[in-house]
Amino acid sequence: MPAADGRTARWLPRLAQLSADYARAIDDDRLEEWPGFFTDPCVYKITSADNHRRGWPVGLVYADSRGMLIDRVAALREANIYERQSYRHLVGLPVILAEPDEGARVETSFLVVRIMRDGAMDIFATGRYLDLVVEDGDALRLRERIVVCDNSRFDTLLALPL
Amino acid sequence: MPAADGRTARWLPRLAQLSADYARAIDDDRLEEWPGFFTDPCVYKITSADNHRRGWPVGLVYADSRGMLIDRVAALREANIYERQSYRHLVGLPVILAEPDEGARVETSFLVVRIMRDGAMDIFATGRYLDLVVEDGDALRLRERIVVCDNSRFDTLLALPL
Amino acid sequence: MPAADGRTARWLPRLAQLSADYARAIDDDRLEEWPGFFTDPCVYKITSADNHRRGWPVGLVYADSRGMLIDRVAALREANIYERQSYRHLVGLPVILAEPDEGARVETSFLVVRIMRDGAMDIFATGRYLDLVVEDGDALRLRERIVVCDNSRFDTLLALPL
Repeated sequence: MPAADGRTARWLPRLAQLSADYARAIDDDRLEEWPGFFTDPCVYKITSADNHRRGWPVGLVYADSRGMLIDRVAALREANIYERQSYRHLVGLPVILAEPDEGARVETSFLVVRIMRDGAMDIFATGRYLDLVVEDGDALRLRERIVVCDNSRFDTLLALPL
Repeated sequence: MPAADGRTARWLPRLAQLSADYARAIDDDRLEEWPGFFTDPCVYKITSADNHRRGWPVGLVYADSRGMLIDRVAALREANIYERQSYRHLVGLPVILAEPDEGARVETSFLVVRIMRDGAMDIFATGRYLDLVVEDGDALRLRERIVVCDNSRFDTLLALPL
Repeated sequence: MPAADGRTARWLPRLAQLSADYARAIDDDRLEEWPGFFTDPCVYKITSADNHRRGWPVGLVYADSRGMLIDRVAALREANIYERQSYRHLVGLPVILAEPDEGARVETSFLVVRIMRDGAMDIFATGRYLDLVVEDGDALRLRERIVVCDNSRFDTLLALPL
């Protein structure tokens, strides 16, 4: 069980805020703010629990700079996906797994519900974020976010930020 | 990204408790305690994300005093709805958006699961609470709670507190 | 509304960590760590909201020692259930209900999603944990966890830790 001291105790409220802010930006359709949650360069990856367990590097989505995240947002805007559906993230409490010199390794469970225009709702994805969070000026930012999805079956909509 | 200082840092644990207590009162079928989470007068409104975005004042439910909330509970008891179903709220962490003199403007994501008597469960509603929370004696209370639902399709059961 | 002072204020972050760690151990298929979250002896019980309300002692699962929890894990490994499905717990914030001398009585809402091998997801269970949490050396442990499920209809899979 991780110890709740040192950086953990001081960072927990800020980590929880980061997590909530990140989810809100996506759920409120403020996608343009999404790249700002990452450092530059960064790692953003979506993978499945199976791939992650086996150590397979293959991911469904991969980006290693803010520029790539910005491109992804542009593509989503082009595809006009948010006209047809919205999302609601429910995130658990962050758990600090390790505190390397450069920041904190954090795991957080998530559940994403998709809401279609006609009001239909379904569970879109569940899983956990594996983050490396660092202090970047006054803010906490994601140097690395690996999104490990429990379900390995996805349609192309997975391209949406998780 | 909202700053995590001042009232924010001090109130976060209390806001989280308020949020959890509110949800428990409804999920435990202690509806009679529900009006006590609000100041008097107050604003309680349920609306859809579409209506809210367009600034339309129309809501599905509206109350501006504890008396109106008490009336609503009485109507629900009359309708005997809780005999046939129950609810489970999962709420995210509160995010403090602003700190006006009189309190704090807070946003919190929620997911409500409905459990029917035969054991069937479905996602009943998702959305976010937009609150104005104030100190009222020793307690934090809701001067305003706007429930913005992601889904715009509701049956009459919406009358239940969210 | 429970007061947020004394042990409450000091323990809340640790209780939240305990809750998140417990859920992670199950969701990551580290079942062998699960008994370590309890004291020995302990009480672990799964029951329905109906049974709990009526004060019926009958539960769907009952264990009163770590040894019994270890046996349960062994049975689950034998049945090989985790090959076919996984789980994702979303837990709410812990609410401290009382602070007896020996620890804290805590209630926490939960939602468990089940993910089948083919990627299908459904809501498996919702409910609340009623815990007696005590300090055991440096760690917080569960002397008692009553899992009160909202839904009273279960298949045999309920034997999985909730």
